[in-house]
Amino acid sequence: MKNIDEKYMNLCIDLALKGKGHVEPNPLVGCIIVKNNKVIGKGYHKIFGANHAEVNAVNDALKTTKKLKGSTLYVNLEPCSHFGKTPPCSDLIINHKFKRVVIGLKDPNPLVNGKGIARLKKAGIIVNSGILTNKCIELNEKFIVNVTQNRPYITIKIAQSIDGKIALNNFSSKWITDIFSREFAHELRAQNDCILIGKNSVIQDNPELTVRLVKSLKHPVRIVIDKDLKLTSKYKLLKNKPPLTIIFHSSSKITKDLPHLKYVKLKSDKSIIKMSDVVKHLFKLGYNSLLIEGGAFVYSQFIKENLFDELNVIVAPKIIGDGLSPFKDFKIDRIAKAKELFLKEITLLDKDIVLKYKNY
Amino acid sequence: MKNIDEKYMNLCIDLALKGKGHVEPNPLVGCIIVKNNKVIGKGYHKIFGANHAEVNAVNDALKTTKKLKGSTLYVNLEPCSHFGKTPPCSDLIINHKFKRVVIGLKDPNPLVNGKGIARLKKAGIIVNSGILTNKCIELNEKFIVNVTQNRPYITIKIAQSIDGKIALNNFSSKWITDIFSREFAHELRAQNDCILIGKNSVIQDNPELTVRLVKSLKHPVRIVIDKDLKLTSKYKLLKNKPPLTIIFHSSSKITKDLPHLKYVKLKSDKSIIKMSDVVKHLFKLGYNSLLIEGGAFVYSQFIKENLFDELNVIVAPKIIGDGLSPFKDFKIDRIAKAKELFLKEITLLDKDIVLKYKNY
Repeated sequence: MKNIDEKYMNLCIDLALKGKGHVEPNPLVGCIIVKNNKVIGKGYHKIFGANHAEVNAVNDALKTTKKLKGSTLYVNLEPCSHFGKTPPCSDLIINHKFKRVVIGLKDPNPLVNGKGIARLKKAGIIVNSGILTNKCIELNEKFIVNVTQNRPYITIKIAQSIDGKIALNNFSSKWITDIFSREFAHELRAQNDCILIGKNSVIQDNPELTVRLVKSLKHPVRIVIDKDLKLTSKYKLLKNKPPLTIIFHSSSKITKDLPHLKYVKLKSDKSIIKMSDVVKHLFKLGYNSLLIEGGAFVYSQFIKENLFDELNVIVAPKIIGDGLSPFKDFKIDRIAKAKELFLKEITLLDKDIVLKYKNY
Repeated sequence: MKNIDEKYMNLCIDLALKGKGHVEPNPLVGCIIVKNNKVIGKGYHKIFGANHAEVNAVNDALKTTKKLKGSTLYVNLEPCSHFGKTPPCSDLIINHKFKRVVIGLKDPNPLVNGKGIARLKKAGIIVNSGILTNKCIELNEKFIVNVTQNRPYITIKIAQSIDGKIALNNFSSKWITDIFSREFAHELRAQNDCILIGKNSVIQDNPELTVRLVKSLKHPVRIVIDKDLKLTSKYKLLKNKPPLTIIFHSSSKITKDLPHLKYVKLKSDKSIIKMSDVVKHLFKLGYNSLLIEGGAFVYSQFIKENLFDELNVIVAPKIIGDGLSPFKDFKIDRIAKAKELFLKEITLLDKDIVLKYKNY
C-alpha cells in the first residue's frame, strides 16, 4: 500500500509543479483520483484565485465516471476546510462519498492545520497523511514560511571571491563575478517579490536592481534601508521611474510619496532599524518573497536576527586578499556558535559557481 | 588515423596510471606496440628507477613476435635520448626498426625536450607528436612543474567557513571543518613529500602534521618557517620524533640539528624569508611536492609570489562573521588585478565541500 500511495503522491507533486509561477503566493497543489486501481481524475491548482486542485480533479473524473463513491483521493496538501476564494474542498470530498483520502502534508496554515482532516474523518472517510512529507514540504517551502512565520521567504544573495570578499576595501569593485553570474542574479531577482539593499550599497554602486538581463513578467519592488534619509534623488533607485522603490527609515524628516517612491517610517531600536520589523511590514503589504542583496551591514543584520531561509553564494574563481567580508558586523566568540547551514545545491555557471545553502 | 591514434594513446594513459604512487618523482608513462592493426605489446613504468615503459612494451611484444620491424609504437611521453638510470629508449626503438612512433607529449624535461624525437627522425622513423596533449599534460602535471620550474609542485590547502574565515579573531577555533574533511586533509598530506606551516600556526594549534587518519606508507616531512627561531621544543613538531621536521630561519642564533630536526638558514629580504628560496631549497633536497597548510601570513606570501599550482578550499557550511581571512596580507588595488584561478573539481564530503582550483 505504501509504495502505491507514494507512487500516486509523486504524480500529485508532478502535477502541482505545473502551477509554478502562476499560483503564488498560494501553495502548489496536485490531486489524483483513483478507483479500482485506475487513475480516473487528475487536477492541479492552475492560477491564483482559481479552482483548487481537488475541484479540478473531481471535475476531470466526472467526465468519464458517473459516481466517485468508494474512490481514493490523493493530494499533496491537506484539503481546506474554510471558505476562502472557493468553498471548502473537504466538503466536496465528503459530498462525493470518497472512501479514502491520502495526504502528503498537513496544511501548515493555521486556518486549516488538521481541521480538514478532522472534518473528513468525522464523515467516516479513511485518512492517511504524511506520505512523502519531506518532498511535499520542499515543494511549498516558500508558502510554509509565509503562513507559519507571517513574513516573506527570505533569500540572501552574495557574490564573493574564493576567499570570501564581496569588494575591495576601496570599493573599486562593482562586479566580482562575470556576466553569467549577473544573469543568474537577475533570474533570482525575478523569482522574488522584492529586493532589499542598504543605503551604503546605493551610494557605492548606484544600482538599478532590475531584471533587465532576463525575460521576466515580474519586476520586483526595490526596498532600501536608509535610516536617516541620506539618499537624494540623484540615485537611480530614487528617480521617479518604475518599478516601485520603498524606503524604510526612522527619521523625523518630512517625506513625500511619489507614484514610484514610498516612504515607511519605523521605530529604531538602539538607533538600528530591526530587519524583523521591515519584513513584517513587507508581508503586511502583500510581499511574500524577499531577496537581500547587501551590503555587509545589511547582510550582518539578517544573520544576527537569524532572519533568512536561503543563502546563495556566487563564488568567482578569484583571490582578492584584503577586502570587505560579507558578514563583518556579525561576531561569535566560539566556533560552536557559528551559524550552521545545509548545502542544498551547487550550480556551475561559466567560471563561477553558486552554492545554495538552506537555513533549516 | 587520428581516431585510431587517440584510441591507442588513451590505452597508454590507462597503462601509465598503474604506476601512480610508485614511480614518482618520475613521470607516469605507458606504451603500446601495434603491428598490422593488432596490439602486440604493452608496458608501463612500474617503479622508480626500474625499466621505462618502452622497454617493458618491447619485452612484452618480443614474447610473441619475433621481429618488431614495421610496427608502430605509442607512448604518452617523448622517449628519452639520454643515459639516465637506463639506456636511451630512442636507441631501443631505432634498433628494433619501428616504422612509426606516436607521442602524446614532447618531454618538458630540458634534458630531453625534442632530442628524442630528433634522434628518431634522423633514423628515418615517422614521428607523430601532440596526440591528446592536454590529457598527457594533466597525467604528469606534477612532473612537468618539477622539470620546468625546478621546484616542488605546490598545493595550498585552506579550511574555511562559507564567508571565507579560517579562524575566529580570538583563534579559539582549531577545527572549522569536520572529521571527514580532516580525513580528506590527511589524504592530501599523504600525496605530498612535505607539509609547510608558519610559526604562528605552530603556536596557535600545536599540530602534529601527520597522516594518522589515513593508511599511508608515506610520512611527509614537516617544514616550519620560523624566521627568528622563536619556537621551543615544547611544540610537537620540534620534539625529537619522526617524521623529520625542517625549520627555515634567518636568525644568527646557533642551531643544533637532531636526528629528526634540521635547521636551514636562508637570507631574509626586507626581514622576510622568500618562499621561492624555501621551495628551491626543498627541491634541491629532493622534495617534489609541497602542501601549504597556513596560516594567513604564509598563505599570503605564496599568493604574493604567485608560487602555487593548486588551491584546495574546504568549505564548511558555517557562517563565522568577523574573523581571520586566509590571504589578509595580500592586497590589490583594482578587481582586474585579482588573481584568477580555474575551478577544476568539486568534491562533496559529508557536510563540507572541497573546491579544487588550478593556477594555470
